[in-house]
Amino acid sequence: MILTLAELAEFLTSQGMPCEVDGAASVTVSSVATLEDAGEGQLSFLANPKYESQLSTTRASAVLVKPEVRVSRGLNALRTANPYAAVTAAIVRLHGHREHPQWGISDRAFIARGAVIGSGANVGPGAHVDDDVQIGDDATIYPGAYIARGCRIGRSVTLFPNVVIYENCVLGDRVTIHAGTVIGEDGLGYAPVNDKWVKIPQIGNVVIHDDVEIGANCTIDRATLGSSVIGRGTKFSNLIAIGHGTKIGDDCLFVAQVGVAGSVSVGRHVTMAGQAGIVGHITIGDNATVGAKAGVTNTVEPGTTVLGQPAVPINDCKRQVAVVQRLPELKNEVRRLRRDLDRLMKQRENDE
Amino acid sequence: MILTLAELAEFLTSQGMPCEVDGAASVTVSSVATLEDAGEGQLSFLANPKYESQLSTTRASAVLVKPEVRVSRGLNALRTANPYAAVTAAIVRLHGHREHPQWGISDRAFIARGAVIGSGANVGPGAHVDDDVQIGDDATIYPGAYIARGCRIGRSVTLFPNVVIYENCVLGDRVTIHAGTVIGEDGLGYAPVNDKWVKIPQIGNVVIHDDVEIGANCTIDRATLGSSVIGRGTKFSNLIAIGHGTKIGDDCLFVAQVGVAGSVSVGRHVTMAGQAGIVGHITIGDNATVGAKAGVTNTVEPGTTVLGQPAVPINDCKRQVAVVQRLPELKNEVRRLRRDLDRLMKQRENDE
Amino acid sequence: MILTLAELAEFLTSQGMPCEVDGAASVTVSSVATLEDAGEGQLSFLANPKYESQLSTTRASAVLVKPEVRVSRGLNALRTANPYAAVTAAIVRLHGHREHPQWGISDRAFIARGAVIGSGANVGPGAHVDDDVQIGDDATIYPGAYIARGCRIGRSVTLFPNVVIYENCVLGDRVTIHAGTVIGEDGLGYAPVNDKWVKIPQIGNVVIHDDVEIGANCTIDRATLGSSVIGRGTKFSNLIAIGHGTKIGDDCLFVAQVGVAGSVSVGRHVTMAGQAGIVGHITIGDNATVGAKAGVTNTVEPGTTVLGQPAVPINDCKRQVAVVQRLPELKNEVRRLRRDLDRLMKQRENDE
Repeated sequence: MILTLAELAEFLTSQGMPCEVDGAASVTVSSVATLEDAGEGQLSFLANPKYESQLSTTRASAVLVKPEVRVSRGLNALRTANPYAAVTAAIVRLHGHREHPQWGISDRAFIARGAVIGSGANVGPGAHVDDDVQIGDDATIYPGAYIARGCRIGRSVTLFPNVVIYENCVLGDRVTIHAGTVIGEDGLGYAPVNDKWVKIPQIGNVVIHDDVEIGANCTIDRATLGSSVIGRGTKFSNLIAIGHGTKIGDDCLFVAQVGVAGSVSVGRHVTMAGQAGIVGHITIGDNATVGAKAGVTNTVEPGTTVLGQPAVPINDCKRQVAVVQRLPELKNEVRRLRRDLDRLMKQRENDE
Repeated sequence: MILTLAELAEFLTSQGMPCEVDGAASVTVSSVATLEDAGEGQLSFLANPKYESQLSTTRASAVLVKPEVRVSRGLNALRTANPYAAVTAAIVRLHGHREHPQWGISDRAFIARGAVIGSGANVGPGAHVDDDVQIGDDATIYPGAYIARGCRIGRSVTLFPNVVIYENCVLGDRVTIHAGTVIGEDGLGYAPVNDKWVKIPQIGNVVIHDDVEIGANCTIDRATLGSSVIGRGTKFSNLIAIGHGTKIGDDCLFVAQVGVAGSVSVGRHVTMAGQAGIVGHITIGDNATVGAKAGVTNTVEPGTTVLGQPAVPINDCKRQVAVVQRLPELKNEVRRLRRDLDRLMKQRENDE
Repeated sequence: MILTLAELAEFLTSQGMPCEVDGAASVTVSSVATLEDAGEGQLSFLANPKYESQLSTTRASAVLVKPEVRVSRGLNALRTANPYAAVTAAIVRLHGHREHPQWGISDRAFIARGAVIGSGANVGPGAHVDDDVQIGDDATIYPGAYIARGCRIGRSVTLFPNVVIYENCVLGDRVTIHAGTVIGEDGLGYAPVNDKWVKIPQIGNVVIHDDVEIGANCTIDRATLGSSVIGRGTKFSNLIAIGHGTKIGDDCLFVAQVGVAGSVSVGRHVTMAGQAGIVGHITIGDNATVGAKAGVTNTVEPGTTVLGQPAVPINDCKRQVAVVQRLPELKNEVRRLRRDLDRLMKQRENDE
């Protein structure tokens, strides 16, 4: 799409982001780039003051900036209160979302006889849809994806290449699963018998609600009984492991390499930073935040932020870290105290 | 399978778990569910006292409970000393293990001319079996799995979709590998030459012994020379990385996201909790336990439990953590000591 | 290949590793093995003194050792200053690098009409090459690999089975990507709107320069705008996550399960040990080393080694760890100081 700056300002304003053109309103842009990379016909933006110096060197045709920011003579500015939100809207407007290949139902896909596939759905070559699977309208199943028997896949779902969904799992509408992710594999369910591990059939499933997006190469265990659940609107990055029977609320955001053990209950709108780990059978309250690499071993209260291993409220953690980093000094002070005190005690003895 | 409570109690008793019916012995159950989810025709159980209140609301047709537990009038109980072990046996009895699709050798699989496939084996559409591969009887190779030349795959092995086995690896009987796991990729074997990394061919392989189960999206490096080894009966969860030349003993249990570097020797019946990491070239003794997120940098003695980064015996770690969490207090106490001591020293000076 | 010891010594000498035969120069070797495993016709080596005792029991036909090492009578030695470098060269000489299957362009591959594939390239059965993709000469695309539209794949690239490359990514010459790795998936790019996460199209790509090797089941996010970049000659192990917009320099070495967040700038020849994590928007200087499990939250200066969570220079970290491990003692000493001091203060009061 090509827009004049006037049209773009009007669009942003209509989206609740009042915007004014400071420059040539008839100039056009058709794509978005960073200040460093942008050229003729491209829109850029300044959200982080750290990059302000690039305003004088950018070759963008226009830049989204805050009202008070100065730009060079000759650089067209679009002034708006929140340039980051505005550039996000501009990216969607100019570029749109990814368009998927249109395979229809490829004759090189494997579709079991009992599978039901909605209208407008794409099933790519080499994708595999097993018996008794239902796939909603307008879904896209990329090559190499495998959907086992009994799964229910919602409308407008996207499964990228080589996604694997084990039997009887349920995906809501508009769920997106990135390449290589596995949904519904067996969890680590074994009974210890004479120092050996005897497998417990994992007869539950995984239920993923509407509008969830899951990154690449994640693994979400099916429940032993009942369901592992990912709540509506939750977004995962890559290489995340979710244990069996864990239930995650709506609108959570998990960064890469997070691991959540089994039977955990995670509230809504919880953020987990990279490489955080959660032990089994605990509860993480609504709107909680778990810091990067935190090792959470106890229930986290709603709205709190925890950090450290074992995780504690973030201010406690920071205080501990500060003291730990000055521990060598503390140790020296204790040594001096001992020396001074011993001298004093010695003097006292001598007095007597 | 449908069983009366009498039949189920008899079965459990025959398995070494004496069990008595307290209720209507002719009632039937056909599946297992949690207290919360169970309904008509379903068996449930109480193993964790935390869920005891659900006994009064469950709609299960029967519950496995300890002999001393009280249940509501009208709820059929099966009384046994270890309800968790009993429900495990009941799940196997009522549900059985997963049944795999029966593709036979799909004409949409790719089987190289020199491959030998045992009787009763299933090779799904889109699976790839390279030259000089042998696959045992009754094995199941799901779609998208790739087995490179020279591999030996035992009887009743299951490779879930998109598993990749590099050349010359050996899998014993009844090995199960979940979707997306990669076995035998090259490890990080490079020789440093003038600040560049020169590849060392990794000419070893991976040997996985009988009855091993490996989760989804794991990676097990082939050895540079010789074999990386996973011992009989060992079970892995997901997203686990094993380095080249590492040898892991029998009957180990590794939780998700564990990483073991190369040339490590892990004993038998070792447990590693989630996100634990082990540096290269060390030994972990038999029956040792490595705690969640532990960073193990030294040999671990048999039977010990280690925790922390760097990992130390668990009691030392807990003591350290307890002191660290009270460090701000300790620091304040040292400050008070200094103040008191200085005052005393001052007084002493004044005395003289 | 079969070589006499005389030929092998001559070869190593020609490679800048002067080598002398101490034994029967006409004996031949055709492969390399460890001291423990080697037999007739095999070459072994002693690089780590820890294994010296195996020199007396090995059945290798010859061993690479340092000039001063004593070997049993009857064991042929090849004496050279750096046996580890020499055995590396010998492995390459005797075994060569992996030979890929020769499928040509399989008629069971899916090649979109607009794709261009170089001469000598192999595209295996079940591989998928989308529209407007260019693949260089002599590349090997294994079964189940998926290359989305607009990608540029260099000469002699190897994509192992089930590798997925999202649209518009660029791979240089001789890039090797191991099985299951995903390149160019969307990063965690969402704008928060009323407690929900609104997707920001990720319109950038990933650029991987020449001679990069990436392990199995890694994930490299495409940039929101511009490119995520992996520099020439960099080598990754497995299960590594790289965030969107991150740029990594040449000749880096990353061990398994490393996670780097988005918009990070990593210099050249940086080493990251296993399970290290890097927060977003920071810089890691050239030749820096990040220790295992380190949590890096701030810029790392060139040439420094950091460790710990949060990461600090390694010597500071070691000092902190040493003090922490003796914290219970320190606490006891503080308690004794208080007791002694209180007694002294009491005496003082009594004096007055």
